[in-house]
Amino acid sequence: MLEKRKPLQVRDAQRMMLEHAASLHTEWLPLEKAAGRVLAEDVTADAAVPPFDRSPYDGYAVRAEDTKGAGRDTPVHLQILETIGAGSVPDKEVTPGTASRIMTGAMIPSGADAVIMLEQTSNDTSGEMAVYRECAAGENIVRKASEMAEGEVVVTKGTTVHPGVTAVLAAFGHSRVLVRRRPRIGVIATGTELLEPHEALETGKIRNSNAYMVLHQLAEAGAETVYLGKLDDDLPSAVRSTGDALESVDALITTGGVSVGDFDFLPEVYKQLGADVLFNKIAMRPGSVTSAAVIGKKVLFGLSGNPSACFVGFELFAGPWIRASQGDEAPYLQKGRAVLGEDFSKPNPFTRFIRGTFHDSGSTVCVPAGMDKSQAVTTLAHTSILIVLPGGTRGYQKGDEVDILYLHSSGSQEPLHPEKRAGS
Amino acid sequence: MLEKRKPLQVRDAQRMMLEHAASLHTEWLPLEKAAGRVLAEDVTADAAVPPFDRSPYDGYAVRAEDTKGAGRDTPVHLQILETIGAGSVPDKEVTPGTASRIMTGAMIPSGADAVIMLEQTSNDTSGEMAVYRECAAGENIVRKASEMAEGEVVVTKGTTVHPGVTAVLAAFGHSRVLVRRRPRIGVIATGTELLEPHEALETGKIRNSNAYMVLHQLAEAGAETVYLGKLDDDLPSAVRSTGDALESVDALITTGGVSVGDFDFLPEVYKQLGADVLFNKIAMRPGSVTSAAVIGKKVLFGLSGNPSACFVGFELFAGPWIRASQGDEAPYLQKGRAVLGEDFSKPNPFTRFIRGTFHDSGSTVCVPAGMDKSQAVTTLAHTSILIVLPGGTRGYQKGDEVDILYLHSSGSQEPLHPEKRAGS
Repeated sequence: MLEKRKPLQVRDAQRMMLEHAASLHTEWLPLEKAAGRVLAEDVTADAAVPPFDRSPYDGYAVRAEDTKGAGRDTPVHLQILETIGAGSVPDKEVTPGTASRIMTGAMIPSGADAVIMLEQTSNDTSGEMAVYRECAAGENIVRKASEMAEGEVVVTKGTTVHPGVTAVLAAFGHSRVLVRRRPRIGVIATGTELLEPHEALETGKIRNSNAYMVLHQLAEAGAETVYLGKLDDDLPSAVRSTGDALESVDALITTGGVSVGDFDFLPEVYKQLGADVLFNKIAMRPGSVTSAAVIGKKVLFGLSGNPSACFVGFELFAGPWIRASQGDEAPYLQKGRAVLGEDFSKPNPFTRFIRGTFHDSGSTVCVPAGMDKSQAVTTLAHTSILIVLPGGTRGYQKGDEVDILYLHSSGSQEPLHPEKRAGS
Repeated sequence: MLEKRKPLQVRDAQRMMLEHAASLHTEWLPLEKAAGRVLAEDVTADAAVPPFDRSPYDGYAVRAEDTKGAGRDTPVHLQILETIGAGSVPDKEVTPGTASRIMTGAMIPSGADAVIMLEQTSNDTSGEMAVYRECAAGENIVRKASEMAEGEVVVTKGTTVHPGVTAVLAAFGHSRVLVRRRPRIGVIATGTELLEPHEALETGKIRNSNAYMVLHQLAEAGAETVYLGKLDDDLPSAVRSTGDALESVDALITTGGVSVGDFDFLPEVYKQLGADVLFNKIAMRPGSVTSAAVIGKKVLFGLSGNPSACFVGFELFAGPWIRASQGDEAPYLQKGRAVLGEDFSKPNPFTRFIRGTFHDSGSTVCVPAGMDKSQAVTTLAHTSILIVLPGGTRGYQKGDEVDILYLHSSGSQEPLHPEKRAGS
């Protein structure tokens, strides 16, 4: 008799995986090696920003009071004391009738309470400059700590180090950062029909594309990977090799061998290993046979042997688990909204994840990457999003607004739009 | 007198950079090392897909003719010949009154012209199975080459190898792939006020965050990086070191030193090196002082010393140049559309690129990452998109639809939506 499996909703299966996220130990890394890692502690400002009152422009530091009455035809002349470059400390106090030339980012000298932009002044060789308008006290001065107080949290624990985070870490003197180690994930392919990419095709066989795809997905998700080859056909030896593999990894991903059928023995391997099955059927297409199980603190992901189902199963469940295990507080694929570019009129009781791309023409329009048969491995090459079509009794029409999930792999052929001017 | 600079539109500057993209030589890489690289030739199918007529389901391969008259109460009994697993070759021809058990993906045996799903049959221990419905000829048979003919192009030149492309390359036996080499890019910081992240703060000085940020952006864009430290203050030695650095790289990025002002001498360095300036002012905020120049086939990018302007200048000009130089046919940031979550009522003649994030609540809503002063380095840590506000005489209101550019660094805290069922 065939095993009956109760389908779980995608969201519930995602939550369940996160409850079983590993808690990996922390390590210190030099900033330049921390790209893509997840911060394991809040990062604070080691100094106020700005650390002193500073000028946002090239210009002159003046006493606002001295500019009273200045106008286009009634310039006020002030004696230039010195030039203050960014990074240098002013030598002189600005006293009545004087001004200091100041560079962008430089420290406001004592006595001065305003900066006038260079463009609004003139100077000659006499050592004096002329101001053509009045300044208000405090004008063009960026106050010490106006952006950030010393000790304030600038980036929180759980943030992935992308280039903007790197900038902030560098700015606040964090030349070493505390991150969680990367999870180590093993990949095992199942299926007697599988050939490696370098092997010549034989009748009845296909190439093992899933393992290479998953290894690449794992690298993108920030995991260390170990390719363990193909699982033995023989049950006792499959149980033994799976158990051995689990010793040296945080999680194990198998591809294939999860369908309901007498040739698929992964469920039996799980059973003999004493694994606790979290789910083995999800209300989604493709990938409904995606499975997950736990043995102690180790996780087993059973992804479909079908390339597209394998891809989707990874992105929805394994990827988030890997990111969450590093402490990432935003471990799921980024969601967006888009307008369907084609009809999907056939209703489906399960939620569909259509491999697609998007473009913008007024609004963001998503279109399938090709025929969405789960056999169609070639469409994966053209996929930059998953279009989410929740299950139900009706289909979807072109023009419907739907959710999309971004796969972090998209680029654009277009430079910026012709500039569309507001108000013209 | 201050130099007058004519601002270029962003789009025109982007196009100009691409005209000066390098054409890097090609190299063969093993598939598992090709992640993120750009294909230098079209990749073809080394065999038809599927390579033989195959079964999409677990079931029985039958002669449709034999199932005539089969019904719920009038089953047709067929003798089971053999079991055909995925990857194996059928031994027997299906003849009248017989059927072969067939697994998902397995080859259709000769004689059979339909597959009936396992669920629609029953069997007993007598070596016979029962069919409860009629099959049509051709039913549940995936025809040889129905997805792809041998020799057909499956992925085109100029495509970046993301996991879906890896799957397709593996499936078609491309264990080695031809890609363009990665460009080698040098980074030089300018500014006497700069301290390295490990150095203690001194009065008047700030940390060099730009160089570390740009090194990370470069790595994301697929470049090899060389950090060359700070540029000398002394003009002749700055010219010499810049010239020397250019020898060993494809492009050089400097941060800072590009403003109009007497302390900024990068324009003079360009001049003495005999560089041909492509642009030195762009109609954008921040980053209007972003410059680019060429010397022979080498490119000099002059990014602003202001962290946010530096960031934006990189993403709009340097990133696309780096990707295009590798042959990437989609080198620009992916664009999308979103609804403004806040007012930007002040008009600006230049196009603004607001550092922001987005979320979806019905439609995609974009919001600024924090105060958008170009000084605000901390907002970079919270930026996952750039919000594009074309220049003009009016400002923008909350609710306006605008373009956004994705920075490939975003994730989500939310698992999939509660499933919204169409038609319920």
